[in-house]
Amino acid sequence: MAAGSTYGTLFKLTTWGKSHGKGVGVVIDGCPAGLPLDESDIQKYLDRRKPGQSRFTTQRNEADAAEILSGVFEGRTTGTPISVLVRNRDQRSKDYSEIASYYRPGHADFCFDAKYGFRDYRGGGRSSGRETIARVAAGAVAAKVLASMGITVTAYTLSIGPVTADRARFDQKQIAENDLCMPDAAAAAAAADYLSDCMKRRDSAGGICECVVTGLPAGLGEPVFEKIDAALAKAILSIGAVKGFEIGDGFGAAAATGQSNNDSFCMKDGAVKKRTNHSGGTLGGLTDGAPLVFRAAIKPTPSVAAKQNTVNRNGGEISIEIKGRHDPIIVPRAVVVVESMAAVTLLDALLMNMTARLDRIVDFYRR
Amino acid sequence: MAAGSTYGTLFKLTTWGKSHGKGVGVVIDGCPAGLPLDESDIQKYLDRRKPGQSRFTTQRNEADAAEILSGVFEGRTTGTPISVLVRNRDQRSKDYSEIASYYRPGHADFCFDAKYGFRDYRGGGRSSGRETIARVAAGAVAAKVLASMGITVTAYTLSIGPVTADRARFDQKQIAENDLCMPDAAAAAAAADYLSDCMKRRDSAGGICECVVTGLPAGLGEPVFEKIDAALAKAILSIGAVKGFEIGDGFGAAAATGQSNNDSFCMKDGAVKKRTNHSGGTLGGLTDGAPLVFRAAIKPTPSVAAKQNTVNRNGGEISIEIKGRHDPIIVPRAVVVVESMAAVTLLDALLMNMTARLDRIVDFYRR
Amino acid sequence: MAAGSTYGTLFKLTTWGKSHGKGVGVVIDGCPAGLPLDESDIQKYLDRRKPGQSRFTTQRNEADAAEILSGVFEGRTTGTPISVLVRNRDQRSKDYSEIASYYRPGHADFCFDAKYGFRDYRGGGRSSGRETIARVAAGAVAAKVLASMGITVTAYTLSIGPVTADRARFDQKQIAENDLCMPDAAAAAAAADYLSDCMKRRDSAGGICECVVTGLPAGLGEPVFEKIDAALAKAILSIGAVKGFEIGDGFGAAAATGQSNNDSFCMKDGAVKKRTNHSGGTLGGLTDGAPLVFRAAIKPTPSVAAKQNTVNRNGGEISIEIKGRHDPIIVPRAVVVVESMAAVTLLDALLMNMTARLDRIVDFYRR
Amino acid sequence: MAAGSTYGTLFKLTTWGKSHGKGVGVVIDGCPAGLPLDESDIQKYLDRRKPGQSRFTTQRNEADAAEILSGVFEGRTTGTPISVLVRNRDQRSKDYSEIASYYRPGHADFCFDAKYGFRDYRGGGRSSGRETIARVAAGAVAAKVLASMGITVTAYTLSIGPVTADRARFDQKQIAENDLCMPDAAAAAAAADYLSDCMKRRDSAGGICECVVTGLPAGLGEPVFEKIDAALAKAILSIGAVKGFEIGDGFGAAAATGQSNNDSFCMKDGAVKKRTNHSGGTLGGLTDGAPLVFRAAIKPTPSVAAKQNTVNRNGGEISIEIKGRHDPIIVPRAVVVVESMAAVTLLDALLMNMTARLDRIVDFYRR
Repeated sequence: MAAGSTYGTLFKLTTWGKSHGKGVGVVIDGCPAGLPLDESDIQKYLDRRKPGQSRFTTQRNEADAAEILSGVFEGRTTGTPISVLVRNRDQRSKDYSEIASYYRPGHADFCFDAKYGFRDYRGGGRSSGRETIARVAAGAVAAKVLASMGITVTAYTLSIGPVTADRARFDQKQIAENDLCMPDAAAAAAAADYLSDCMKRRDSAGGICECVVTGLPAGLGEPVFEKIDAALAKAILSIGAVKGFEIGDGFGAAAATGQSNNDSFCMKDGAVKKRTNHSGGTLGGLTDGAPLVFRAAIKPTPSVAAKQNTVNRNGGEISIEIKGRHDPIIVPRAVVVVESMAAVTLLDALLMNMTARLDRIVDFYRR
Repeated sequence: MAAGSTYGTLFKLTTWGKSHGKGVGVVIDGCPAGLPLDESDIQKYLDRRKPGQSRFTTQRNEADAAEILSGVFEGRTTGTPISVLVRNRDQRSKDYSEIASYYRPGHADFCFDAKYGFRDYRGGGRSSGRETIARVAAGAVAAKVLASMGITVTAYTLSIGPVTADRARFDQKQIAENDLCMPDAAAAAAAADYLSDCMKRRDSAGGICECVVTGLPAGLGEPVFEKIDAALAKAILSIGAVKGFEIGDGFGAAAATGQSNNDSFCMKDGAVKKRTNHSGGTLGGLTDGAPLVFRAAIKPTPSVAAKQNTVNRNGGEISIEIKGRHDPIIVPRAVVVVESMAAVTLLDALLMNMTARLDRIVDFYRR
Repeated sequence: MAAGSTYGTLFKLTTWGKSHGKGVGVVIDGCPAGLPLDESDIQKYLDRRKPGQSRFTTQRNEADAAEILSGVFEGRTTGTPISVLVRNRDQRSKDYSEIASYYRPGHADFCFDAKYGFRDYRGGGRSSGRETIARVAAGAVAAKVLASMGITVTAYTLSIGPVTADRARFDQKQIAENDLCMPDAAAAAAAADYLSDCMKRRDSAGGICECVVTGLPAGLGEPVFEKIDAALAKAILSIGAVKGFEIGDGFGAAAATGQSNNDSFCMKDGAVKKRTNHSGGTLGGLTDGAPLVFRAAIKPTPSVAAKQNTVNRNGGEISIEIKGRHDPIIVPRAVVVVESMAAVTLLDALLMNMTARLDRIVDFYRR
Repeated sequence: MAAGSTYGTLFKLTTWGKSHGKGVGVVIDGCPAGLPLDESDIQKYLDRRKPGQSRFTTQRNEADAAEILSGVFEGRTTGTPISVLVRNRDQRSKDYSEIASYYRPGHADFCFDAKYGFRDYRGGGRSSGRETIARVAAGAVAAKVLASMGITVTAYTLSIGPVTADRARFDQKQIAENDLCMPDAAAAAAAADYLSDCMKRRDSAGGICECVVTGLPAGLGEPVFEKIDAALAKAILSIGAVKGFEIGDGFGAAAATGQSNNDSFCMKDGAVKKRTNHSGGTLGGLTDGAPLVFRAAIKPTPSVAAKQNTVNRNGGEISIEIKGRHDPIIVPRAVVVVESMAAVTLLDALLMNMTARLDRIVDFYRR
């Protein structure tokens, strides 16, 4: 779709705002009427991506307080657009004044100039990570709808640089308990050491975020162009800094053989189930009843403190040292963004799927 | 978007058809007027995915002849919809009669039943690989438009199972010269041996397809939800059997550090360039002027000849042996599909990008 | 939406084809699975707009035979795209060769040249009335879905030139029984006389088509931009030659006062009803439970046999006499097109409306 | 499109907000970069629809002050979303408390309950006229883009009840000079008398708004479903209280003959022109170079002070007298809304039209 700030077909978000300006926000259209909702539902999600919470996140001090401007009446959604506003507060725009004149490596500065002729250079403008606040606000709403249907969406940090969580030690509680959102306390400790080392070298680290969705009915997604995994891939790659997406065994499946990669069907409690889940919960682009499991590769923070070579707007080759406040790792703060994009995408697919069968439509309107 | 058979915003395809039925086709809407086009332009692309061309592709014998039904007048596109029809010919529907009663592992049979209540069980119906004929027909048209602007899209097989093409031996001519579309004759030979071995074991293999796009201007794509890499990820994951997508260093970037992953800018022939291309040609979701480089992980063909366990529609656990004609590897035939989906996606982004700047719009209408 | 040949969100049509070319067709995506459908369902609708059936329609001799190419299996829709093809047969292209050089008054010739740089000049190309075949094929499918829910869509000729059907003599059977589709035999006879007179003067006539829809639940449509009357207005104005749309009292309401124009609510058989229907079945853009009643103003056929002044492509002022076969009145053949566009629009709204309430969504997925 | 609060393809608005809540607003996505814009540009438009400006508008006292929250940097649009917020101030919610229990005739109360199960009953909620503030804010931006290309959009009151402006006395200056926005001072005076009389009878009046657009190039619009007149019809009917739309001679064309309704082409200053403009500036759904001329029929304000019969939510038949502050006529305040919807629709078509011809696209990217 054009312009790029609207997402979704039936559950539709439109986001706006930049790092340095009056704020960021989202308009959520198509949220079903009757969902109990207040600002605390959204705030819980926003607090998970808030800066300043550990030594691994920027020290920018933002309350990131959500204000619901419309769409809720007497505590319930009305079916009309929910507008959420988060005002920016701690903007030190002068930190960025220098940036106006040159192109930071690994950032979109050059591309924005190429596209629009100029750019809001403060803090990355529209390509700032603060843009994700709007996604998370919408994700909180979508996740609450999904939860009312027994569907859970859980993301976490699978790896940071060379340190990977051990599936044998998987502990869901740990996700909320360590700064790095890893489901393995030992890995989290090792990753913290690795990150400290990166920071000493004025460097940054990348990592992998994994997401698991349970409780989905089989058959979600649409054949051909709207496969559920294709929709998720777009949702996840649309998050800044994500460079790869895989579902189920993903790139591992490319090295496997058919016999080992196929999941056998079996009967369990009277229902069709799969014995394994190499597919990651989708076959032919439709959910297959098993948990959805996918991963996002996230690049290292491009704003490193070390000296770098680049060019300025006048075509001069220069070397720079980026100042300002930057996370040495993006992954832990991206975890709730990944959950949010998965939630809005899956809710949209759930709504769309209601119209697949004539008998069910007739039945729906008969009551 | 709903229903799932329409793709694109300004250059828009709508596909239809199944493995066993009267045929498959595509309606291409929004193709700019004035492109010289005839059926041979499309046929060249279709011939690259045609079955029966080597011992590694199904022996189904299809002419796959494209008929242009509309949208071209006196050898040029008119700006109105181009309808392309490819009739099915060699349908041995009885080969599939048995499949009606059970769910093949690794296929969408079960999911289609879950979604729609029943399914066209012949040859996978709408989830058949023959659906990609329509994409390739549209891709041929998009690629011809792109070529007129100096943009080339080239995909190839990077790896098959454990065998990977050696970048040091990269030879573009080889792509068209070996059955496996590998840009490295030695790797192609080793992969052929590996595949022969798979076939002997009644098994199949997966692999990786890589795609490189040159000649794109900087600034294509839209910030936030319509990032060019996000759009490509969806395009590529929408191809059946694709399980992963990565751009530039992709999952490798997740293990890198910021200093090594950032591409420095420099000046070259008076223009801003990058010294390296870890990003794969995109920053912040916009093209950065370097070649686009992305990869697709493709799973092994799920139709293996070996015995497999599954369930039938009555809930009985059974074991099956799939008959019919199936490729032992999907990758080589997917190469032109990957190129096609890239071409239609990038053309759409090019058209969309024309409206980014007011000065250029005013200038456009002033002439 | 761009390009202009795709219509609808959940029930989505994409049409293609021209007056003189291989044929016209439609791809219907998003049709719910399980609808009994064969070619005769579509043929019945196509036959209502077929030329050559009376002295008031062009003598072009077309079978207009519909072939379903996909989307139906064992007599029922599968939920995947239904592709319908109608081949052109009786094309006398040389009738139009002269038209290539000049712009016919009242036709889109000049506009197509202005937009695309050239045009398929044969028979109006894409702006030919034959384009509506595709709409009617889709309308037949939509109407069958609606009928399965007790919803009927009925259009007819309300007036031709100065002759208007008398509501006091309204006789639904007459619609199918006279050549002019008027629900009043006396008016039809008077209109036939008027048309004969027009033809003698080498002139043509306009008229009004009215459409009534019964059985719709209240609440269809979406507030703000997707009001049901707004969606219908676009659907109807998208039919060539339509110059106006009104719902309920329409332009009459502009001359009324609030007291006379408001419809009082009352209770009837335990349900909320309206005593009158000045609104035409919609309030605030949502259906109000009363029958939808709207009208389309259709201009006179622009291809008149009388001499006309115009210009040629070289900028010369000339006078012309249009040859070829043309209807002296468009309205009677537009009746089934109006019904079709109403049916596809209302079905889309019905599908969309299923996601309005959380309790109903939860209930839908619980079964 | 679903949900209904997003409008447009390339120039896209998303609106939110209600009569009684924190405010109303719009997110404008796809506005070309480089447009000089500040809040005064928007305020000028908002002030034209502001209440409390004459005895014929509600005495609700709203500043309707626009705040631009994003999308503008150093006085120019950046190409990223422009978020505009207008806070509600003078809300007397208790005026509406009674309305909660019953359905007002001519209003959407019943339909909202039918669709969503409950409603925000304060002041009509989302179906309030205050929703149009968001449209006008976007219209101000679109109109400024159009003005930079020499395109003007001018709407005015053509008639109120039985009083119609005399085209022979047409005086554009009068539109801004009388309370009723009529381009004819004498008609405005007569209409004021008529309205005063209506108010004495505790009644309200309807009327017709006409809009003229000059400076458009020929060829805008897309054939088939996205005809420019179809798009305008939807845009205009999506404004609450509009019951009809006609372009050019509109319903008058239905009574005309082909010879009188066709506009002859001629040459003027070396360009193709039309001698007359019965078509209203569009042929085959594409602009024909003549001014666009269309009209909207607007119903009388449904909130009349006189006693009316209706039902309450418990199914009781009651009679009511509506209190609160209501305009006796909607038309004059709708004038700027009609202009706004025309401006956003035409700008979208202008952007879309840039991709119609390959030669122009190649030329665009070559510079």
